Amino acid sequence: MVQQSMPKSENSAFPPEEQPDKVYLPRTSESETLKKIRHTASHVMAMAVQKLFPKAQVTIGPWIENGFYYDFDNPEPFTESDLKAIQKEMVKIINRKLPVIREEVSREEAERRIRDINEPYKLEILEGIEEPITIYHLGNEWWDLCAGPHVENTSELNPKGIEVESVAGAYWRGDETRAQLQRIYATAWETPEQLAEYKRRKEEALRRDHRRLGKELGLFVFSDLVGPGLPLWTPKGTVLRSTLEEFLKQEQLKRGYQPVVTPHISRVDLFKTSGHWQKYHEDMFPMMGDSEDESFVLKPMNCPFHVQIYKSELRSYRDLPIRLAEFGTVYRYEQSGELGGLTRVRGFTQDDAHLFVTPEQLDSEFLNVVDLILSVNKSLRLENFKARLSFRDPASNKYIGSDEAWDKAESAIRRAVEILGMEHFEGIGEAAFYGPKLDFIVRDVLDREWQLGTVQVDYNLPERFDLEYVAEDGTRKRPVMIHRAPFGSLERLIGILIEEYAGDFPLWLAPLQVRLLPVSEAQLPFAQTVASKMRSLGIRAEADASNERLGKLIRNAEKEKIPVMAVVGAKEVESNSLSIRTRASGELGVMLVAEMLEKMQRAIGDHDDF
Amino acid sequence: MVQQSMPKSENSAFPPEEQPDKVYLPRTSESETLKKIRHTASHVMAMAVQKLFPKAQVTIGPWIENGFYYDFDNPEPFTESDLKAIQKEMVKIINRKLPVIREEVSREEAERRIRDINEPYKLEILEGIEEPITIYHLGNEWWDLCAGPHVENTSELNPKGIEVESVAGAYWRGDETRAQLQRIYATAWETPEQLAEYKRRKEEALRRDHRRLGKELGLFVFSDLVGPGLPLWTPKGTVLRSTLEEFLKQEQLKRGYQPVVTPHISRVDLFKTSGHWQKYHEDMFPMMGDSEDESFVLKPMNCPFHVQIYKSELRSYRDLPIRLAEFGTVYRYEQSGELGGLTRVRGFTQDDAHLFVTPEQLDSEFLNVVDLILSVNKSLRLENFKARLSFRDPASNKYIGSDEAWDKAESAIRRAVEILGMEHFEGIGEAAFYGPKLDFIVRDVLDREWQLGTVQVDYNLPERFDLEYVAEDGTRKRPVMIHRAPFGSLERLIGILIEEYAGDFPLWLAPLQVRLLPVSEAQLPFAQTVASKMRSLGIRAEADASNERLGKLIRNAEKEKIPVMAVVGAKEVESNSLSIRTRASGELGVMLVAEMLEKMQRAIGDHDDF
Repeated sequence: MVQQSMPKSENSAFPPEEQPDKVYLPRTSESETLKKIRHTASHVMAMAVQKLFPKAQVTIGPWIENGFYYDFDNPEPFTESDLKAIQKEMVKIINRKLPVIREEVSREEAERRIRDINEPYKLEILEGIEEPITIYHLGNEWWDLCAGPHVENTSELNPKGIEVESVAGAYWRGDETRAQLQRIYATAWETPEQLAEYKRRKEEALRRDHRRLGKELGLFVFSDLVGPGLPLWTPKGTVLRSTLEEFLKQEQLKRGYQPVVTPHISRVDLFKTSGHWQKYHEDMFPMMGDSEDESFVLKPMNCPFHVQIYKSELRSYRDLPIRLAEFGTVYRYEQSGELGGLTRVRGFTQDDAHLFVTPEQLDSEFLNVVDLILSVNKSLRLENFKARLSFRDPASNKYIGSDEAWDKAESAIRRAVEILGMEHFEGIGEAAFYGPKLDFIVRDVLDREWQLGTVQVDYNLPERFDLEYVAEDGTRKRPVMIHRAPFGSLERLIGILIEEYAGDFPLWLAPLQVRLLPVSEAQLPFAQTVASKMRSLGIRAEADASNERLGKLIRNAEKEKIPVMAVVGAKEVESNSLSIRTRASGELGVMLVAEMLEKMQRAIGDHDDF
Repeated sequence: MVQQSMPKSENSAFPPEEQPDKVYLPRTSESETLKKIRHTASHVMAMAVQKLFPKAQVTIGPWIENGFYYDFDNPEPFTESDLKAIQKEMVKIINRKLPVIREEVSREEAERRIRDINEPYKLEILEGIEEPITIYHLGNEWWDLCAGPHVENTSELNPKGIEVESVAGAYWRGDETRAQLQRIYATAWETPEQLAEYKRRKEEALRRDHRRLGKELGLFVFSDLVGPGLPLWTPKGTVLRSTLEEFLKQEQLKRGYQPVVTPHISRVDLFKTSGHWQKYHEDMFPMMGDSEDESFVLKPMNCPFHVQIYKSELRSYRDLPIRLAEFGTVYRYEQSGELGGLTRVRGFTQDDAHLFVTPEQLDSEFLNVVDLILSVNKSLRLENFKARLSFRDPASNKYIGSDEAWDKAESAIRRAVEILGMEHFEGIGEAAFYGPKLDFIVRDVLDREWQLGTVQVDYNLPERFDLEYVAEDGTRKRPVMIHRAPFGSLERLIGILIEEYAGDFPLWLAPLQVRLLPVSEAQLPFAQTVASKMRSLGIRAEADASNERLGKLIRNAEKEKIPVMAVVGAKEVESNSLSIRTRASGELGVMLVAEMLEKMQRAIGDHDDF
């Protein structure tokens, strides 16, 4: 079972020194100062709103990753110009240098004061909070029920570090049967430089957004009839998938992996035996049929199927390690509200493999797996990452497997990252109950962290499925399993790569690698012949037959982010050459066709730019 | 929608002259004589049983493809020696030259006679049959209710052409709540030569049985926990699958197909729009969830997904034809009693593609598809086949699409088979309501017929999904769809190929292509170096490291049906050569390693034997 990994925004372990050319954006989860600034700014916003819109009722207003929001009940919808007015009013309040005063009150006193100002939502909030009940005042003009913490004076807020951003609908208590509220989002930072950097990143994120680029470059589509979270891969996107799959398949074949193919469904019994049904079935799609014994379920993971293949024969120590690999498409019933583009989907393909090894082989096999992941990350140009080692808490007894086995597995993991010289940190107590693991946390160009590759040691499934091998002394022994997925999920990886590359795929991955641009119709046959020659060599090439002017052909190729353009004019035809222009290196001048083909094949094979 | 094809045993169109070296086995469905022989032999068997087992009650006894059976209610189970005794008794009855006499009786008379002999099952049968009620007598000793036809005298049966084969359980009327009966199977032919040929084929079928060979060669496994009809592909079987897929993928790329990838599930709505839900949902797995609007289903076919990709952009006549291809795994809820090995499964991978074409392109695209299927069949060495052209019945009006469109499509199909010089026959009125089609009926080495490749023209889905393209004159027009699958189902194809080849896969398909056999341990390093060199060239090779004697190594390789063995002794190491022995051509003598590699690569590339 390889967990679908998810963004770990709380897990920052990268010091700011790594981006010397950028303004460091502190994370709210780490910075007490930012928490206080955002908490207080949220009160300032609520005060400003109630000043400008006396009918507005206040509800809640927490800090969030890049700022804060506040939910209001107001008879009229807030407009863009309302937001500007609110921003202005906030600046005024801040500039008045109001003290922020904490007061502890009894429940009765709190209730009396709320009734005085007639705020029914606050009454409901009061019911839900425990003593001590605290109130924070802005000067003596405005107050809110709040647990704090806050800054001591509004002068600690920098008006040039705060910006009201947008408004959206929200339900009171997230319950769609209750009142509909208006949620105003704002961002708040310590300095104007931080705000500017945040806005730059936000814009950059928008420019790189894989949902937008995926559509523009025609890589995948969604369909209402098919349903949310279920991408359909167009021809271009399928090139990305199959190039990544083929690359990893070859790397794995070299390392002795054996591909297998297993069904997407099974009887519920398989997942009862594995234990997934008991622990995990809320995340699985509903059963097909209504009897647990007779019914089928979509697989949320591939491991129990690979276990069935292992178990279909009596294995000897001489057969081990057995490394079964599958690009296995699995399905998980994510809430539809959580679905977005490719980074969270309901069906995704894991580059899954399960290694069945003797305890003695654990060390070398683990090293082999980590080495594979490193070479994958290098080919994908994802070189800014750290390893997180999730180990057991020696004080707890929730783990299965002997202490000795755990020590062995943990030291195998530690040794692998040390031998390979990887930056890493240990998470004591973060292991699953069935074994320790190692995750690769990749930091992307937008400074976000993603968990990609993962390697897990598992003592549990071999136990539950009673796996065995015949040892050298003739006795039956239990193998250890390693679960691993260098990509994690193909969908999520492609989503991340689109953003990392801003759609500019490296040559070897690009759906179309070269487009031949004939200067006039007379050169089209030559261009088509060369394109066809290229295709026969495995280069993804096409000739532009649209008969537009060269400038237009170039602009189109640039818009489609095709890595190599080969212009064909009369001179080129005569000399059997091409005029090359690449996105990575600009104009490369005129090249003989044969030379160009050879260079291009080499660049593709080496995963280099052209 | 490409239908999962099934054996068409009733559809014989091959004259006996095609197997000049074999005894021709007539089919019961074609031969009136055989029907009569089997019908009468079944009565003879029932008479024999009642003579030997006076408590046995008779029920029904029809003729079947290779003989007949009769179901008896008898207190004791029939043993092997009982069957022999029955056979002997039958010979006696036949040799008595009893006349077979037809008598027409009234219902009352029939009932009276049945009550006389106290046969309650016959009474129940009588209730279900219509007048005229006929009885067939064997001499004046035994009779049965029967519609005939029969031979005129038991002397027309050849006792050396009849054999009692086996006994199995069966329920009265196939209803498991009713009495359990014993069904005795027998085979019956006109001549002893036909019986011998039948037995030879039966034995050959057993020898080639893909379920047995699949297990022996380690190609696929089933698991009770996963469920029936859901094969799991082992490493060796996965080589078969991926080699076939890769071969077809390359053939398709050359012909301008574009691979796509789509989910295995969708909202029910997709299949309501396509019409599959209404017409087909009994054959689909049950919904996941219980609301038709919100629930998901496993896909029984890929077409509606490819339609969604087509529809995701506005298409121009310049973009057409668009050929979307997917090795799409689909799931159909076959009854568990119908499942057997790979030929009928619940999950199978179609080599599916959908061509979206203008009406003008139908001709050339159809030709292109048929040409592809021919080249696939040639590579698979399935060269004994015919085309069945399923056309509309011009007198019926159940078809959608204009007469003109149908004429065009039917003549496109007819022209394609004529241009390609294919043997074919037309089935008037056999077209689906949505368009005509062409099926490839392959006859295998056991003289059985299988429907494999299929091409269907479809006017319906473009209509239901309102598909369009912008024509040259700027108007919106409706494209035509072609569904096609040269393999049909990968699972079934592999099942058929295993039997066709009796497990002896041609070199290019064999899971392991060459095994290097070191004469002694001293030659193992050389063998391993050569094997590794071979693998780097894409040849599936391994060195046998078991350190057994050469004779044992050769026997093992033969048992595993590995196409090429390369023996390495001291002399071979010295001269950098290999001593080659192949399953297809026997001993090939000593060859330099370099020469062998080159020849082998060429043979694999050309799909030749070595």
